[in-house]
Amino acid sequence: MSVFEELSKTTCFGGSQLTLSHDSKATGTPMKLSVFVPPAAADAPVPCVFWLSGLTCTEENFTVKAGAQRMASELGLIVVAPDTSPRGEGVADDEGYDLGQGAGFYVDATEAPWTPHFKMYSYVTEELPALIREAFPVRPGGLGVMGHSMGGHGALTVALRNSELFKSVSAFSPIVAPTQAPWGRKALAAYLGDDQTKWAAHDACELVCSRGFPTQILVDQGDADGFLEEQLQTWRLVDACKEVGQSAKIRMQPGYDHSYFFIATFIDDHLRHHARILG
Amino acid sequence: MSVFEELSKTTCFGGSQLTLSHDSKATGTPMKLSVFVPPAAADAPVPCVFWLSGLTCTEENFTVKAGAQRMASELGLIVVAPDTSPRGEGVADDEGYDLGQGAGFYVDATEAPWTPHFKMYSYVTEELPALIREAFPVRPGGLGVMGHSMGGHGALTVALRNSELFKSVSAFSPIVAPTQAPWGRKALAAYLGDDQTKWAAHDACELVCSRGFPTQILVDQGDADGFLEEQLQTWRLVDACKEVGQSAKIRMQPGYDHSYFFIATFIDDHLRHHARILG
Repeated sequence: MSVFEELSKTTCFGGSQLTLSHDSKATGTPMKLSVFVPPAAADAPVPCVFWLSGLTCTEENFTVKAGAQRMASELGLIVVAPDTSPRGEGVADDEGYDLGQGAGFYVDATEAPWTPHFKMYSYVTEELPALIREAFPVRPGGLGVMGHSMGGHGALTVALRNSELFKSVSAFSPIVAPTQAPWGRKALAAYLGDDQTKWAAHDACELVCSRGFPTQILVDQGDADGFLEEQLQTWRLVDACKEVGQSAKIRMQPGYDHSYFFIATFIDDHLRHHARILG
Repeated sequence: MSVFEELSKTTCFGGSQLTLSHDSKATGTPMKLSVFVPPAAADAPVPCVFWLSGLTCTEENFTVKAGAQRMASELGLIVVAPDTSPRGEGVADDEGYDLGQGAGFYVDATEAPWTPHFKMYSYVTEELPALIREAFPVRPGGLGVMGHSMGGHGALTVALRNSELFKSVSAFSPIVAPTQAPWGRKALAAYLGDDQTKWAAHDACELVCSRGFPTQILVDQGDADGFLEEQLQTWRLVDACKEVGQSAKIRMQPGYDHSYFFIATFIDDHLRHHARILG
């Protein structure tokens, strides 16, 4: 299992649910992650989907709450869920739940006190894909990414910037325009500084317009989500995709909120989306 | 919603996932529970299955970890998960995780200091069924019960003693013979006293032999469960069912442990079992 230390291993839907730890070069800290390995991976390389979690989450929330393992087992998908930031006593933090530990926002910080460890962009686009490929039978060209809220922002932005690496992308309740919303503006200012020209590279709407994505983007958003109007602003992504002709399926789901009960309801659709594209 | 206070309500698989609280007459304390109401309940009364959780659990563990809502929605089942004991400052407790708060063992205590509040047998066989029927559209004769570990013991014993009330029963990793195992002996001695003749009424193996159950009993047990040999002793239930000709499907599942990843893997089978019997 190469660099990974196995913290736990549990049989689940005929596959293995692992919790792993490793010393990350990107963040300079130990990082935990969960990996589901489907039964099909015993026979041949299979596609792999990264799950990027939202504010306050660790590698555990998705793993125990989303119910993804059933369909991942059926479709033969490895699912990797990293933690949302570096953590520990020597790591900078903030009193708010929306900055610092648990809130890495999938960027590489360039501002004090965040610079030394907050390198979640490099972590999820470079170090982690390489380590996962070394340790698990991932089919070449078979990597996708999905996420929720801050992690939906993460999934969309890392995929749009790295479409040669991530072939499929989807998101639940993503922050689609962090340059326009309080959570995003606070985090981007703290991690990247006040020069807003540097923020656009981490704004999904900006990236849809400037780069686009080769395959269809799938997004689910609950219309009873209390963060919709102020923080998530889904309509901006709808508009951006329309403007440039980006293939996208952006679904407003009536009655659903921001919770993992919403994610559990539609995770099968997202896994099928990735399996279809990753083939 | 009659006596229940609604603490939360979330849309999930087209139905509603509720967290409720009420002042229990049986326990003399506030009691919390979770209730999943499937979309089908909007049109007509539907069957209802109680889930009884294991040691240390609250109403939340099953609700967020088991992934039961998908199949419950599809089959049209209400699923009710109560807390595992009375709780609060005025309620007796023990330093161990296996006695006191979080460990009610589904008996009515007759010994100090447990007597005033530890009435989980009456709670799940009398008060809660009545309140649920008042508040939700439960089909007459459509009540089943299932559970895990201590709650598997609870499901089996309350069903065997109340087969006119609970028409279907299943269990994950149940304590099948608490009179023969350390967890059970400690709890039964504390709650019921040292007269072991009183314990048999709460031992599933004894009840299979003395009463039997009208419909098939479904049990799943992981063979990598660290509690199997000392605490759960599944073979005793296999032997008891054989001895008296009780219809039972008791499955030893290779590689699975005691966790909710095991429960999630097989919960669909259990829900189908209940739906089939409850019609």
